[in-house]
Amino acid sequence: MKVLIVHAHAEPKSFNGALTERAVATLTAEGHEVQVSDLYAMGFNPVSDRSNFTTIANPDYLKQQAEEAYATEHDGFAPEILAEIEKLEWCDTLIFQFPLWWFGLPAILKGWVDRIFAYKRVYAGGFWYDKGAFTGKRALLSLTTGGVETAYSPSGLQGSIDQILYPIQHGMLAFTGFDVLPPFVSWSVAHIDDASRAGLLDAWDARLRALTTTKPIVWTPALSDLDKTFRDTVPSFVVHGVFTGEPPAELVAAERIAVASLKAHGVLKSIQLASDYRQGWLLLRAADEETVWGHLRALPLFEYLRWEVVRVG
Amino acid sequence: MKVLIVHAHAEPKSFNGALTERAVATLTAEGHEVQVSDLYAMGFNPVSDRSNFTTIANPDYLKQQAEEAYATEHDGFAPEILAEIEKLEWCDTLIFQFPLWWFGLPAILKGWVDRIFAYKRVYAGGFWYDKGAFTGKRALLSLTTGGVETAYSPSGLQGSIDQILYPIQHGMLAFTGFDVLPPFVSWSVAHIDDASRAGLLDAWDARLRALTTTKPIVWTPALSDLDKTFRDTVPSFVVHGVFTGEPPAELVAAERIAVASLKAHGVLKSIQLASDYRQGWLLLRAADEETVWGHLRALPLFEYLRWEVVRVG
Repeated sequence: MKVLIVHAHAEPKSFNGALTERAVATLTAEGHEVQVSDLYAMGFNPVSDRSNFTTIANPDYLKQQAEEAYATEHDGFAPEILAEIEKLEWCDTLIFQFPLWWFGLPAILKGWVDRIFAYKRVYAGGFWYDKGAFTGKRALLSLTTGGVETAYSPSGLQGSIDQILYPIQHGMLAFTGFDVLPPFVSWSVAHIDDASRAGLLDAWDARLRALTTTKPIVWTPALSDLDKTFRDTVPSFVVHGVFTGEPPAELVAAERIAVASLKAHGVLKSIQLASDYRQGWLLLRAADEETVWGHLRALPLFEYLRWEVVRVG
Repeated sequence: MKVLIVHAHAEPKSFNGALTERAVATLTAEGHEVQVSDLYAMGFNPVSDRSNFTTIANPDYLKQQAEEAYATEHDGFAPEILAEIEKLEWCDTLIFQFPLWWFGLPAILKGWVDRIFAYKRVYAGGFWYDKGAFTGKRALLSLTTGGVETAYSPSGLQGSIDQILYPIQHGMLAFTGFDVLPPFVSWSVAHIDDASRAGLLDAWDARLRALTTTKPIVWTPALSDLDKTFRDTVPSFVVHGVFTGEPPAELVAAERIAVASLKAHGVLKSIQLASDYRQGWLLLRAADEETVWGHLRALPLFEYLRWEVVRVG
């Protein structure tokens, strides 16, 4: 496998540096080819403008997308841009290694995306998500945070990490067709001890060895599910389940796995459980009510609850 | 009022340019003081590193936050950084004017935040959100998109614009204490006619005249609601309402306003309506069940529905 790591940290001795170093060692030992774009070391300029190009489509009005299209047709990308585009096209797996700064990518990495993900070369109208240029490739974020994990939960101060990473995972990576793997987050690395940091490096190692077998996060809708205004045509259903009996403990564990699978496949959009766990509400995305009942009947605890299904939206 | 516009577009003749030009004209005519940081025109460098500082806390290991703290204490910000920090501290209202690139800020503006929002000067541990340095100030995003509005809805291809802007509105602006006003979005400006663009400029004008009276978006939780792990201590409740009678049409309109108010105040977290509108589910954040019933009784349609309230989470 060919892996491109785009690394965005100014300090080589940082924990981000250690994570990239470990990734190179592990992936190489596993027989993969690895390239690293170390953006700070390269002195990468993240400002997208005419310097991206050796060609000029319109000298009087700079429209970045139009210049990108023109450069694509006329072999007009500046050498430092072309080199990165070629690495991106070369790789099977793309890894972003970065500290979470202000809920996003450091500007040097955001600008790498701004400049390298060029119109007509990397994406085009309608060629996105499941029709994107990079379908079949995998992408993975490895990031460090200042705050503790609980602060990045749905009820936490900062909001859920999934919500924070949405513009990156959905908007940059899934948009261009990548299968996005669950992110590897090193929480609050400045405030933990050396043993914890060593543990994180080992966990990273394990995630890297599982690169080809890890199940990606699935986003819906597929382009074929959209109407002409780019809206999802697949309806949602509120499902209310109330326990009517005591289920065996082993089925409860199996139920958790089944529910996680519904979520990973884009069927389960959200879930709320009563504080006594005696009832719950699922928001499911499905073609029709029959499909919803099919999903429910496949749940290990199906027979222990009374279900009610209502179409919404 | 003092207004700082941070403008991030390379082409002065762009629609972003027109929006900033109109903002300066309107705000000045209204008697406000206006400063513009035109990042491309300034040749602003968005890469955060040692060049932010004239001081050095640790020459052997670059930790950006530690250097920011040191620079704060030793008057050690580089002149171009200090100038922007002072504009930020000077303003009562901050406006970001930008094209949405890859679901976020162009790198030149992301890097303005990375470099200017300096630790100990602009924020510090615990001094964020309702305890942030900029409480009492207002912030507003004005952005242009490539895609049409329907693509940026909750059921749209790209996901809801609120979700896309969350890292900016919540993570950068609310985090540092700003009251964040609803964003002004100019949809798909490259693909609309001149009359539509003129209409957008007029709408922007109206939004600017209402700067001081527009109600901000409210995010919860307040810091005082958090436990020691930075998690919200205020519970949530699923509320199920089923219509039992036919409500007068004028009450339906009033109900919409009341529901929007619950959302603006951070009480209503989400809502799902059955496709026949005969029932609905609200997810409410409230101290206890009695408070929930208080919110429900205040709804114009309260008497026309049968309600059920269950604590979750």
